[in-house]
Amino acid sequence: METNKEEQLEWGPTVWSHLTALRDRSPLIQCITNFVSMDLVANTLLSAGASPAMIHSIQEFSDFTPHIDALYVNVGTLSPDWLPSMKAAALLANEHRKPWVLDPVAAGSSQFRLNACLELLLLKPTVIRGNASEIIALSQAGIDMGPTKGVDSCHESMDAVEAAKFLAEASGSIVAVSGAVDIICSIKSITHGDRLVFVHNGVPMLQKITATGCAVTALIAAFVAAADPLHAFDATVSALSVFAIAGEMGMELAKGPASLRMHLIDSLYGLDQPALLSHINITG
Amino acid sequence: METNKEEQLEWGPTVWSHLTALRDRSPLIQCITNFVSMDLVANTLLSAGASPAMIHSIQEFSDFTPHIDALYVNVGTLSPDWLPSMKAAALLANEHRKPWVLDPVAAGSSQFRLNACLELLLLKPTVIRGNASEIIALSQAGIDMGPTKGVDSCHESMDAVEAAKFLAEASGSIVAVSGAVDIICSIKSITHGDRLVFVHNGVPMLQKITATGCAVTALIAAFVAAADPLHAFDATVSALSVFAIAGEMGMELAKGPASLRMHLIDSLYGLDQPALLSHINITG
Amino acid sequence: METNKEEQLEWGPTVWSHLTALRDRSPLIQCITNFVSMDLVANTLLSAGASPAMIHSIQEFSDFTPHIDALYVNVGTLSPDWLPSMKAAALLANEHRKPWVLDPVAAGSSQFRLNACLELLLLKPTVIRGNASEIIALSQAGIDMGPTKGVDSCHESMDAVEAAKFLAEASGSIVAVSGAVDIICSIKSITHGDRLVFVHNGVPMLQKITATGCAVTALIAAFVAAADPLHAFDATVSALSVFAIAGEMGMELAKGPASLRMHLIDSLYGLDQPALLSHINITG
Repeated sequence: METNKEEQLEWGPTVWSHLTALRDRSPLIQCITNFVSMDLVANTLLSAGASPAMIHSIQEFSDFTPHIDALYVNVGTLSPDWLPSMKAAALLANEHRKPWVLDPVAAGSSQFRLNACLELLLLKPTVIRGNASEIIALSQAGIDMGPTKGVDSCHESMDAVEAAKFLAEASGSIVAVSGAVDIICSIKSITHGDRLVFVHNGVPMLQKITATGCAVTALIAAFVAAADPLHAFDATVSALSVFAIAGEMGMELAKGPASLRMHLIDSLYGLDQPALLSHINITG
Repeated sequence: METNKEEQLEWGPTVWSHLTALRDRSPLIQCITNFVSMDLVANTLLSAGASPAMIHSIQEFSDFTPHIDALYVNVGTLSPDWLPSMKAAALLANEHRKPWVLDPVAAGSSQFRLNACLELLLLKPTVIRGNASEIIALSQAGIDMGPTKGVDSCHESMDAVEAAKFLAEASGSIVAVSGAVDIICSIKSITHGDRLVFVHNGVPMLQKITATGCAVTALIAAFVAAADPLHAFDATVSALSVFAIAGEMGMELAKGPASLRMHLIDSLYGLDQPALLSHINITG
Repeated sequence: METNKEEQLEWGPTVWSHLTALRDRSPLIQCITNFVSMDLVANTLLSAGASPAMIHSIQEFSDFTPHIDALYVNVGTLSPDWLPSMKAAALLANEHRKPWVLDPVAAGSSQFRLNACLELLLLKPTVIRGNASEIIALSQAGIDMGPTKGVDSCHESMDAVEAAKFLAEASGSIVAVSGAVDIICSIKSITHGDRLVFVHNGVPMLQKITATGCAVTALIAAFVAAADPLHAFDATVSALSVFAIAGEMGMELAKGPASLRMHLIDSLYGLDQPALLSHINITG
């Protein structure tokens, strides 16, 4: 895919300034995420400069949630007793005008899970980030849908552009679709207007590491937390770009998925401006 | 222990064909496993070519479980509210003729845990994989047994041959015992007949990494999922062999348990036919 | 900070003998810890020579807990249904004269969490290990306290010396504060008397890896389990010193937080007497 060199020149300083803001402000991110991802999510946030807190008991929210900088909700290992916590935390985040980000893992895998995601969507997440199958499932909810295959996508991200637009308009959220090309869009948003951006960074082997999708969604929460609310769209683009570039840099040293995971986190921690600018590839 | 070169020559192509089938078919494996192991289990399955889904809420099973290729149940961090899920998933797997595999972690540690494992055994897992202490505890259930030491084995795997045979006959399942030598047996099985095979691969340091036992049981589920049901025994042998060979290859690069874990996963991902054939060591 | 060379000469053989005892005795450590930390806690214990068992269901305690060598309780991802398990396990440990160690993660983050920690304190842990913010929060409980920032400390460990002394006297426990300098104290303890020791090892990047605090507390449980009860104070100092030295040695090879985590565990596994003696830096 061709990229517009001028676009990249614009995006470089933007992404770098968002990363710098995150490192300077070290935002506190409350994470209600699945059991599989907790380790990688926490380490991704720490390496990027944020401060993660895995707090999911509703008893703590009135004391704790007002002090956070953003909330991250991920339905990966959903159970009926966690859903009320997710909703209560999202409500409190809204009440205190904190951004919150939703990862609708495997949204189409069951009616229970799809309904849970739809209930969470009604609480107006700032950003929704999923793979193509998840975003398509959400956009088609209410319409009869075939089964999707577990947590992995059976669609290419580019197949999901229309679904992402539909979902962005219906929800008012920024919608991000991860894949070979990451898609970020907002439609008729009061804050962000109509935008559609593509991030071309990343490596296929990231799909062979569990919870990389969960981790990048957490990173979106951190970037959005550190940004002016009016710049949440650019912060989302920046998070996806930075994570994918760290993946590319990690891949240069990796011999397989496990060493890629290690080098990705190390690269995220050490990412400097020249490396960022030389790798960045954003269009649209 | 002497190995029969002819046996190995036979096993080499068999194990390779099972690994190739797994990579080609990318089976969807539903995992109901313990909190400690979720990361390593998911990454092991992804590196081997399977697609893991950690779904444990009973509300999702009627939509999700009919679409899986195999179920993996592991009682590591058992609690009373997870046991009904494990049983319901196993029942559904049976109903839909999907293989399912049981890891009876620390089976002898408490009466509660032992009873849970026995209830699961009644649901006829395709394969049971444990360490020697776990298999001995299960085979002696009903007989008074002394305490076993947590999740680690206090028995050598070869001590468990008779226990494995007894359990295989009583349960009708394929029984695998992990240890310095892995034992795989079936007794009077309608499908597999009487078989007793030994895998001599692996390195002792694997015991210094948490959840390697859980990971290899998950891998058995993936191999069995990708195989013809009539070849579930050979698929089990193949999974244990491939994991242990990846451990040997990882050990060549490792400086301790944490780097071994990384190199093991990388080696599993990259394992090719010449490396497999040069390491394989199966007898019986 | 100046260090007294004679003190170090005394501490070297003491720490080494505690590590050797741990490796020889391989104590069984029951862990009731948070979801984020389970993997690192288990791998830290295994690498040090202990045998971890993550068993949190109250149904198992009467069979299992009497056979353990120490109990580790960590409130990281606390929920109301886990608290009774934590208390029941602590009571059983006391009844069977087994040491138990408390990690009051984010103690000041909510009233619910603070109350839970205070209830656990009443059950007289052998050792309490926290960061400065956590120890200050516990020592000021009952006094109005401002919010603390999630799980990360907003205080330097040296700010917590007086809080640690207060808490040690009030609880009768050994109190350890992790930070740039680790503080270990006991006050008017029947067993340990008045002691105040400082461990100067460690590297700042450990704070960029999730659950390193949880892991070192688990290591304290293992060291205390392997020691004579009269030497629990020295065992605590030894655990903090060994973990921090493994961190320093890991840092020599690390390129970021993820590779540091790996090299830390490898170094802990391989730590020998000359390396220990050349790095050790303990005063007080």
